[in-house]
Amino acid sequence: MAAPPVLPPASVDRVHAARAVAAELGIDVVVLTPGSDLRYLCGYAAHAMERLTALVVPRRGEPLLVVPRLEAPMVGASPAGALGLELLAWDETDDPFALVATAVQARLGGPPARVAVGNRTWAEHALGLQRAMPGSVLELAAPVVDRLRMVKTPHEVEELARAAAAIDRVHARMGEWLRVGRTEAEVGADIAAAILAEGHVAVDFTIVGSGPNGASPHHELSDRVVEAGDMVVVDIGGETDTGYRSDCTRTYLVGGVAARGLLEWYGVLQRAQAAATAAVRPGVTCAQVDAAARQVITDAGWGEQFLHRTGHGIGLDTHEAPYVVAGNDLPLEPGMAFSVEPGIYLAGRYGARIEDIVVCTDDGVRILNRGTRELVELPG
Amino acid sequence: MAAPPVLPPASVDRVHAARAVAAELGIDVVVLTPGSDLRYLCGYAAHAMERLTALVVPRRGEPLLVVPRLEAPMVGASPAGALGLELLAWDETDDPFALVATAVQARLGGPPARVAVGNRTWAEHALGLQRAMPGSVLELAAPVVDRLRMVKTPHEVEELARAAAAIDRVHARMGEWLRVGRTEAEVGADIAAAILAEGHVAVDFTIVGSGPNGASPHHELSDRVVEAGDMVVVDIGGETDTGYRSDCTRTYLVGGVAARGLLEWYGVLQRAQAAATAAVRPGVTCAQVDAAARQVITDAGWGEQFLHRTGHGIGLDTHEAPYVVAGNDLPLEPGMAFSVEPGIYLAGRYGARIEDIVVCTDDGVRILNRGTRELVELPG
Repeated sequence: MAAPPVLPPASVDRVHAARAVAAELGIDVVVLTPGSDLRYLCGYAAHAMERLTALVVPRRGEPLLVVPRLEAPMVGASPAGALGLELLAWDETDDPFALVATAVQARLGGPPARVAVGNRTWAEHALGLQRAMPGSVLELAAPVVDRLRMVKTPHEVEELARAAAAIDRVHARMGEWLRVGRTEAEVGADIAAAILAEGHVAVDFTIVGSGPNGASPHHELSDRVVEAGDMVVVDIGGETDTGYRSDCTRTYLVGGVAARGLLEWYGVLQRAQAAATAAVRPGVTCAQVDAAARQVITDAGWGEQFLHRTGHGIGLDTHEAPYVVAGNDLPLEPGMAFSVEPGIYLAGRYGARIEDIVVCTDDGVRILNRGTRELVELPG
Repeated sequence: MAAPPVLPPASVDRVHAARAVAAELGIDVVVLTPGSDLRYLCGYAAHAMERLTALVVPRRGEPLLVVPRLEAPMVGASPAGALGLELLAWDETDDPFALVATAVQARLGGPPARVAVGNRTWAEHALGLQRAMPGSVLELAAPVVDRLRMVKTPHEVEELARAAAAIDRVHARMGEWLRVGRTEAEVGADIAAAILAEGHVAVDFTIVGSGPNGASPHHELSDRVVEAGDMVVVDIGGETDTGYRSDCTRTYLVGGVAARGLLEWYGVLQRAQAAATAAVRPGVTCAQVDAAARQVITDAGWGEQFLHRTGHGIGLDTHEAPYVVAGNDLPLEPGMAFSVEPGIYLAGRYGARIEDIVVCTDDGVRILNRGTRELVELPG
């Protein structure tokens, strides 16, 4: 498949590019509901709701934006209003799925055989469409949308870099909050405020895994009090005004001095993270990047304690394609952006993780996060 | 169908009640992913993610909770950990859908014919299940889950009352923030902070529709500056620590005195809202409650300007069943909780809406929000 064109944000060109990919794949119509797919293609950052809002892109004919009538004024107020998309506003007692089916049939000259819905489209909307287009087979729109979204434009890379710089500023201030005697929840509340203060419009997550909680990779916050000598995994992220996400993990040692053994153990993780980052270049597969990190940790005897994949794509969603995981033979292309975040988790004791967002460039890798990847000793 | 039992929060009894309803409806297995369905049934407030987390309830045999292995410790830390549910933890390179299919077949003694998924389950999970259980037909779990969730227990009603009192306190302070010369966005930021300060853990939405923006029912915030004499629709809500939601709308007149004509017009809305509230009692249908409000507004000549349904259920979601809309012939039962929120919208000029959360009682209605329903004049 040809490389996708470089697209400006929220352009009707993106909608037309999706239509072209759908036609190439033999998909008759793509239906995308509120979420990052919709925002990416047409700039409409609508909330997911029970009332159907959808960008409907048939393989032939003009795309249309379906919205509840009471929200029609909001389209005009969003970037989508400038795209000249046909608007189909439905009333509270209409069946919006039937309206979509009629509009699609009119464009295609007959009923669609293959209907693709957004991966995160709610089942009630997906099955509503299937009911209204009974001869069709439902499938996921990822092959269409991910093809476009996975490869970031230079503009998008700068948006991710701006998000990364914002979260780096939060990590740089960690000593203000992460201290002996405070609970994870208290530290997390301060971090959340700083995420907003340092250039995000929303907090996506605040993981403060102190001591044994650091061995639970997705542990968020608890009332556990940070003790002197605790290892603390801090994995935080937010959403910027343009919708792009930050996600960065650093591991701290609070109120203690790292013993040599701990630093050697942590050094394994540093080498693994650096190895995976260094492996990034066009043509290398996602699985190979995962393997680069895993090999270092496995060789050191901690393979069983590296519980998760090495990373995930990032953009308008915190987690999106491509996933850096064993079995994913997708070759990297310039513009793909993802996390590199190996971790080692010692159940009942502590854990450590190092995470940067990186971008595959024409000949290697650009690392967007800049803060130190050393184990950060805080005075406590 | 018999009335559902009164259930304590996050009890295995709720899981078993869902199993009983599924069996009664001939559904072979119910699969619920993160969101309020999952939280309601088993107390696990997981985030929606691309990795499958699901409560799997076959019509026969023990239910199980499917989680990514890296999140298994989080189940133990949640109320779900105390329910004794079988845990199926999957590794990053497993196919979780195949594991679910195997577990379901073992319990049923054969492949399921009818698989019901949560209404808000992502399409990628719904279609993943369908692929793994190819002989099955996918349908929505609403007939099972809504049957339980729609009728609130006394405990849940008190949780909603607590949320309503919290948002009432925010409305009572509106004069601190809603003043001439400030932008909607500035007012909204102050409201958001107050939503958190007054007893919520998260802000769900802040609608500040000043002047002509008030005529767009779901308008949120803009840089429009509030002017003297503006009508302002303020519709706000949040989530409490137990997950229950608040949602309350009041309309303000800022820096002006209401002319008699405006008060008469607003009086139509007050009478409509009061008529719908007064109509609430067991056996009355949702459509009849909607009609009670609509009739008053239509009789006054503003029917075309009442753009939306009269209300929506509320609980662990801000919008959930039952929907108070024409065509919904569901009879009310004691314990059903929903909004009563008619509005009148004059495009290009202004709008007004009055919204309370109410609960159907054994013989009538309990109104949870207490603040005045008059047009509130603020000094500006």
